[in-house]
Parts: sequence; C-alpha cells; structure tokens
Amino acid sequence: MQKPIEVLKEYIRFASVSTDPAYAEGMLGARRFATGLLEQLGFVVEVVETELHPILLADRIGDPTWPHIVIYAHYDVQPADPFSQWTDDPFDPTVRDGRLYGRGAADNKGPTIVHMAALSRVLAANPDLPLNITYVIEGEEEIGSPSMPKFFDQYAERLSKADFILVSDTGSPNSEQIVITTALRGLVDLEIKLRGSKCDLHSGIHGGAVYNPNQALMEICASLHNSDGSVNVPGFYDDVVPVFAWEREELKRYPETVDSYRELLDVPAFYPANGLNPLEAVRFGPTLEFNGIGGGYQGEGSKTVIPSEAFAKITCRLVANQDPVKIQAQVVAAIKERCPKGVTLTVREGGIAEAYLVIPPDRPNAPDDQPASFARAFKAADAAIGAKFGKPPIYLREGGSIPVIADFKKRAGLDALMIGLFTPVDNLHAPDEGFSLPLMENAISAFEEIIQNIAIGK
Amino acid sequence: MQKPIEVLKEYIRFASVSTDPAYAEGMLGARRFATGLLEQLGFVVEVVETELHPILLADRIGDPTWPHIVIYAHYDVQPADPFSQWTDDPFDPTVRDGRLYGRGAADNKGPTIVHMAALSRVLAANPDLPLNITYVIEGEEEIGSPSMPKFFDQYAERLSKADFILVSDTGSPNSEQIVITTALRGLVDLEIKLRGSKCDLHSGIHGGAVYNPNQALMEICASLHNSDGSVNVPGFYDDVVPVFAWEREELKRYPETVDSYRELLDVPAFYPANGLNPLEAVRFGPTLEFNGIGGGYQGEGSKTVIPSEAFAKITCRLVANQDPVKIQAQVVAAIKERCPKGVTLTVREGGIAEAYLVIPPDRPNAPDDQPASFARAFKAADAAIGAKFGKPPIYLREGGSIPVIADFKKRAGLDALMIGLFTPVDNLHAPDEGFSLPLMENAISAFEEIIQNIAIGK
Repeated sequence: MQKPIEVLKEYIRFASVSTDPAYAEGMLGARRFATGLLEQLGFVVEVVETELHPILLADRIGDPTWPHIVIYAHYDVQPADPFSQWTDDPFDPTVRDGRLYGRGAADNKGPTIVHMAALSRVLAANPDLPLNITYVIEGEEEIGSPSMPKFFDQYAERLSKADFILVSDTGSPNSEQIVITTALRGLVDLEIKLRGSKCDLHSGIHGGAVYNPNQALMEICASLHNSDGSVNVPGFYDDVVPVFAWEREELKRYPETVDSYRELLDVPAFYPANGLNPLEAVRFGPTLEFNGIGGGYQGEGSKTVIPSEAFAKITCRLVANQDPVKIQAQVVAAIKERCPKGVTLTVREGGIAEAYLVIPPDRPNAPDDQPASFARAFKAADAAIGAKFGKPPIYLREGGSIPVIADFKKRAGLDALMIGLFTPVDNLHAPDEGFSLPLMENAISAFEEIIQNIAIGK
Repeated sequence: MQKPIEVLKEYIRFASVSTDPAYAEGMLGARRFATGLLEQLGFVVEVVETELHPILLADRIGDPTWPHIVIYAHYDVQPADPFSQWTDDPFDPTVRDGRLYGRGAADNKGPTIVHMAALSRVLAANPDLPLNITYVIEGEEEIGSPSMPKFFDQYAERLSKADFILVSDTGSPNSEQIVITTALRGLVDLEIKLRGSKCDLHSGIHGGAVYNPNQALMEICASLHNSDGSVNVPGFYDDVVPVFAWEREELKRYPETVDSYRELLDVPAFYPANGLNPLEAVRFGPTLEFNGIGGGYQGEGSKTVIPSEAFAKITCRLVANQDPVKIQAQVVAAIKERCPKGVTLTVREGGIAEAYLVIPPDRPNAPDDQPASFARAFKAADAAIGAKFGKPPIYLREGGSIPVIADFKKRAGLDALMIGLFTPVDNLHAPDEGFSLPLMENAISAFEEIIQNIAIGK
C-alpha cells in the first residue's frame, strides 16, 4: 500500500455524497477505489447491489477456527454545502498545520485508511495471520443506511459466524485522548411542509386574512421544546435508559471542561439541556433538532410576500431503549395535533435507527456470553492505545448515530468495539472537515497491535 | 401613442427589479422607456438622480391659474422569483384569455399606461387642455421609496403648488367593480439573524448542548402572535385609528364574500385575525408577517446539522395613526428581550412608511380645506367609473402600502385620489402576475373623462 496520507487524499477526491443524485460519479469512484484497496490487501470483494448505492462485502477467510472479525466502514460522505464557508475545495484535499482538510477526511475515509494501513503492515509482516476478516463498507451511512436491512436479510446468517465488529466512526476529545465508544444514539428523521394559499400572496393586499405558513411552521416547531430544554412531545422520555454510575466516573476523565467546550464551539452560552450539563447532554440525553427550515423570500433585501409554503427538516437523536418507530409516531402526532386549520400539513417520515449500547467486558453487569476474542480485543485496545497515545482510552457513550451498529447486534448478534478516531476540531458534517495526521499515524500503530492481538490470542 | 397593450408589453420587457443590483440594465431600460412616452405626450422630463434609482419628474405646465394635478407612478417591479412557478417568462409578456401576464403588468406598469393612454387621447382631441400636470415616476417603490425623502427636500415646495395627486397603484375586487382607495397601510421592515456556533455543527456529536439557531428563531418568532391572531408586542395597538361607520357600510357593497375570498385564495381556513373578519382584517387591522425564514440545510433529503445561522425577514403593515418608528422600536425591543443567551442576535432595521388616510370630500368629517378640483375629481371619478364600468366605485381602505403617498401629504400637503386598477386575480408580488385587458380599456375611457372634467371644471 502507498503512503497512507496519499491514499486518503485520493479517496477524498471522489465526491461521494450519497444524499444527492448529482454525485453518482463520485459514489462510483469511491466504491471502485475502496474495492481496489481491499483487493490489494488480499480480500475477495463482492459488490452487493442495492436500490441505491451498492455495499462492498469483502472476505479474507482462512481456517474456520480462527477468530473472525467484521470491520465496518462507509464510503459515502455528507454534502459539502455551504461551499463558500470552506477555505479550500472540499473535494481537493489540502494539508495545513498537520491536518488534512476535505469532505470525508474524518467521516469516514480517514479512519477507513487507518484500518487498511494497519492491516497492510500486519499482513506484510505476517501474511499467514490467523484471523478471518470480513469487510462491510456501505454507501448510505449518511442517509440512514436504508439498504442495510435488505443486506442483513441476505447476509446476516453468514455475518453471525463472526465474533464481533470493529468500527472507527466515532469521536475522541482530542488527538491524544482516545475514546472507546460504548453507545450510539438512534435517529428519527422527518420533514414537515405547510401549505397555505396555492401561490405566494402580497402581504399588503392579503395580510391579516391568511395564516402565513412561515408563522404556522414556527409556532408548531416552537411548541416542540419546553423552556428547560426538554422535548415537549408526550411520551418522548418514557423509555430512556438511565446513566450507569461508572459512566459518570469515566466522563470525569474527559479532557474537556464545560468552559473549554463552550470555547471550542464558540457559542455565547449553552442550551438549557433538560438538567444535564452540556458534556452529559450530548451523550446521555435525546434531542429534537431543526436541521433546516425555510419559507418565503430568501434573497437580498426584502420582499413583502406571504409565502405559499414553509418546511422544517427535523431529526431526533435517541438514547438506548427508545423505540424510534414509537418516537417518530409521537412527534408526528404532536405536530399534527398542533397544526392550525389555516394551513395544510404534509409529513415525510424519513429514516429511523435504533440506539446502541454495549457494556465493556470488564464493567459491572457486562453480559457473559461474549466471544473470548471480544474481551481480548478490548484488552488489546486498552493497552495499545495507552502505549501509542500515552493515555488509556476513556469508555463513553457518544452522541452520534451509526444506524447500522444496532442492526449488526439485532440481526447478526454482533457487538461492536468502537475506537474513536475523529475529534471535535474535525468539523464533521460542516465546512473545513479535517483529520489529524499525527493521530492518523498513532492510530495505525495502535491498530497494528490490536489486530495482531486479536489474531494470535485465539 | 401606439396601441396601449403593445406599449405595455414593451414596458414590461424591461426587467426593472429595484431590490436586486443584477437588474440595473432593466431599471435603466424602463426609465428610458417611460421618459420617451412622457416626451411623446409633450412633457418636459427631468431625470432626478438619487443614491440608487433616479426619479422621473415631468411637467406639462401652461397657465398657472389652471388646475394642477400630480400623477404618481413607479417604474420598478418586485423580484420575479420563484421563476419556476411562472407559466411563461415573467419578462416576456404573453396574452392568455383576455389577460396580459408579466411581472409589473398590474403593479404598476399597466395602470401607468392607462393614465398615459387616456391623456394621449384627451390631448389629441384638445391639445390646449387647460390642465397643468406634473408626473412623478419613481424607481424604488417596491423597496420602500428610500430616495423620496431627499426628493421632497428638493421638490416639495414646487409640488405643493399642485392641487392633489392622482394615483392608480391600488386594488379593486374585480374587473367590473372599481374601488377608490381611502387609506393605505404603513410598513415596517426588519430582518433578524441569529448566530450560534461559528460554523455548522454535527447534530449527533453536539446535539443537546447548543441552542440551535433555527429553534431559537422559531421560538422568538412564534412569540410575536397571540392565539387570537393579535400581535404580541407591547404597545402595538395603542394608536390604531378606529373604523368609521360609513366604511363598514361601503364594505357591504364589496362583491367578495368571506367564502368567495377563501376560495379565491385557496386556503383551508382563514387566520383568526384578532376579532376582524378576513375582509376587514386586510383593510382595518395592522399585521406582523414573516416574509422569509431560513436556516440550515435547504437541499434534497436530510442533513444532520445544527446550523450556524438562521434568519427571518419580517414586515408589519400599519394602519392610520400608528407611528412606524415607534412600532419598529417596539418589535425590535420585544425580539431582543425574548432572544435566548445561547445565540447572538443581529437586527437589520429596514425601511419604514407611515400609513395614509383620506376622507372623501362628500363624507362626514371630511376636511373643508381641499382645493375645489379635488372634490370635482372625486365627483368625476364616481360618474365616469359608474358609466364605463356599470357600477359606481366603492370607497374603501386598502391593505397595501404606497409609502410615498403619506409623504406627499406630509411634505407637500397633497391628498390623493386613488383609483384601483388591479384585482385579486392579478397575483401582485407573486408568480403569474397579470392585468385584465377589458379593465384596461374601460379604465382608459374613464380616465379620459376624469381628466377632462378636472381640467374644464376650473
């Protein structure tokens, strides 16, 4: 394999935005590039067709008695807009101050190359490594993995023969302190559209008679939170799992304080997050966010119009034990109930994903039916990360969602070892996404050890 | 003068969007075209430079003892977006079913050509018509007439020698029933922008900790109305002038019912407009409207982002006696007070305009210091409209704003005779703006008589 950073740059140049059909060529390019890398590593790659973006399923299978891991990654990225807020072209990666900038640098192309580079080194030293590996690299993670259920229909049984999955699509607080992620939030996606008159109206001639869809939209959306920051949807918190005592202890080791976190985000104050402090809120609490709103005149100056339509794109992040089907129905019901008669509501119910929670093998209440290789992997990760980064990892829940991780558990019985390789300054899903090059090098070294230990320990 | 419809088509082809610098060429073209028409009619045209779009000031002055009217019009138009909602090109006018479609067809290019065509016919029959006429055609009406105050500084004294102004930039309920407008609403324009973090954030990683600017915006904006439809800003209604008894009588003659109006606008229900019925609300009540809102992801599908910024473009329509300076300050104060600490608020205070109210000379409480020509003009209008359209006009307040009309009164002491030539199906400020051709022809005939009567009656 070439120098990892060069490989990563080449990978980023394929603009693989899964949500937008205009990027079909970038999707194809990224998929072919990942396929080539896997083949170089000796994998047999199967391109599994889906209704949208194919999934790469790749095997390096030797003796069936060897430990068997699944490595999960995704080759798609978030849209790069607003383009004007990027320092450089998001799809022509540049290095500045030890960081590589480009859309997907951290989510998830950088971590993917870390795994492959480590594997490449391990296999170069030991071509007969006693470890079965299956790669699953999907192309719809950023749009909620809609093709994975069908994929599991077809491949869950085959995957269930593996021991666990290895994932690096989660975060760490900085380039020195790695987090092993113990939970992911679930997701509920929906979009509401309100329609008033059949076309935009003059706000002078008709103003006062009609319910402005912008106004109705804002009144409905404003009703969805209480002043303490809690979500004002009946039943929303019913099934929320409590926080374990050891989790609050782990969070104390977290190198970010509330103040430093506020400075990092550069916000004047934090949101009143329902009794949680901000570092807790992003891990242990569910949310309801308005990702996009729009209606009426968007241009320069003013236009005295009552718009015909207004929309809000809404997502909820759910914590373990919340049922996304139930939550989606509850939110939609609350919106329908609060919609005034003067406008017509349409709801697009988007993707949903369950939250995921794993208790590390050495913690109280950890399940005792895990494969030996899973406990060994945690132990090796703890040691290797401690050695290469200078500090042992922290075990923490994470705020983001990887919808497919809960599915691996539910459909194939596989728990996940999630080692976080991106950090808050990496600007995921935002302009100037980047990836730390020193972290990349340390992580490759750590993963070399982790992979070797999982293999030889059997 | 050519056939009026052909002249109007040519006038519309100049895309004179005053709010957008990209349309400078259209503004220049429309100005030159109007200048040419005035010169054909024998006017001496002065192009009065302003900081933005020049004003045309044109005189046909004979004997100083003749009656003297000012005709006011504007050559600028609203933006045409969303272009996709137009049946044809908004700047390449087309005729369908007796209507001429194009941006500005009704607001205000059609009515402008009506006046000029009538004048052209009167002057053809009587080149020595004993009537002094001053034309004022501005290019910033659609953006709140920001240059008119300076124009009045320079020309108010000269204009004050006229008797009154004649305007056709108001509405009538349909092509058979003309309204003479007795009031215009005032306007307050402002835009608020909320900023959270310095850039967009991942809604999983940071969701729950930061105040989403979309959410804060919607909470603030939702607080600006009460559930009865009244505006929830302290002091907003303090100075509202009451409705005269004869105004409610006139409204009874209005050919639109609440039901037919609802069908026309094609809304599921009307807004609960603070105790007024919808036909009253658009004339007698002030409003606060959200003309445009936006924040976060606007594209296809979903994007799990917490946006950095959100905005709302807000305008209020004011009724007679409300002070726009005071109202703007009250609305801004309410917004500032309700803005949460987690976001940074910036306010753009846009243009303001006072409302205008005139009591027709034959109504109770009409002022007795009007020039004789003003009462004569109302009488002539009543008779000519009755004759040409088959029904006498209705005298009603209108919901729209023509900021400059209040200024003509305040600065030059001139009241206005406002004869409405556009109708609700004309889609002002909206896609598929159009103008009725039968109305156009009747109006030209009526204005011939009105102009003759003002002149000879002296």
